[in-house]
Amino acid sequence: MSDPRTSFAPRGSTEEVEEGSAFAPKFDADGLMTCVATEACSGEVLMVAHMNAEALQKTIATGEAWYFSRSRRKLWKKGESSGHVQRIIEMRIDCDQDAVWIKVEQAGAGACHTGRRSCFYRRVPVGAADVRKLEFRDADKLFDPEVVYRENSR
Amino acid sequence: MSDPRTSFAPRGSTEEVEEGSAFAPKFDADGLMTCVATEACSGEVLMVAHMNAEALQKTIATGEAWYFSRSRRKLWKKGESSGHVQRIIEMRIDCDQDAVWIKVEQAGAGACHTGRRSCFYRRVPVGAADVRKLEFRDADKLFDPEVVYRENSR
Repeated sequence: MSDPRTSFAPRGSTEEVEEGSAFAPKFDADGLMTCVATEACSGEVLMVAHMNAEALQKTIATGEAWYFSRSRRKLWKKGESSGHVQRIIEMRIDCDQDAVWIKVEQAGAGACHTGRRSCFYRRVPVGAADVRKLEFRDADKLFDPEVVYRENSR
Repeated sequence: MSDPRTSFAPRGSTEEVEEGSAFAPKFDADGLMTCVATEACSGEVLMVAHMNAEALQKTIATGEAWYFSRSRRKLWKKGESSGHVQRIIEMRIDCDQDAVWIKVEQAGAGACHTGRRSCFYRRVPVGAADVRKLEFRDADKLFDPEVVYRENSR
């Protein structure tokens, strides 16, 4: 396929990147940008993951979230094995165009591969004496990962 | 000062990291982790930035957001020059402990150095024919960055 980066505008000046309407996403040295997925109805942060140019392009073209796994070094579609697809309600890009925020409708019981609704199921006790101890919050397992993930993918 | 990383628990097995209560944050090759700041009252994503171990430790100790600037290679306290401090209402860590989500009370008119409430003031037209064209949303400038940032810091 053609280089997915050619789908986007070239990077311009800081003024153009921040105040313009040209979509000129910036990828880091590994070719990735950060993506935050929130649940459109609740505003809850479901997960933080990465997109390369191809994942970003596929997400925009299909209206469903695609990511790039840093650990497995591969493109993956969210829900490809679990069925827990994320339908994009809205996508936003930040000021310097190196992070995207997607508001999604999360299919299935949850977004986290551990079986929870969100990946953020533990609280860091800010200001507490012992910050090494996390507190579980909204941590109910809503599905069994062993059953849902038949293969080594998510 | 002592190595801020020693404030945290050592990384254990995947099971321990994901299902345990030991706070064992993972920093990338540059010593950073991603932080998503949302406005506690609205659920809106205000910004995505990075924390090194010291920024994370200071955020936890002070209850206000500290970050590490990749471009300026320095620790900074959000609001140190603008006064737009972020008070932490809650901090969460994700399943593999390499990203934090902070729900904050944003002081001042906004979080973005361009003068907006949020850094995410442009919409990417998902599914549209011309994805190179961003659409401005919630993009009113609420403060004048030239006035608010007296120095080259934010």
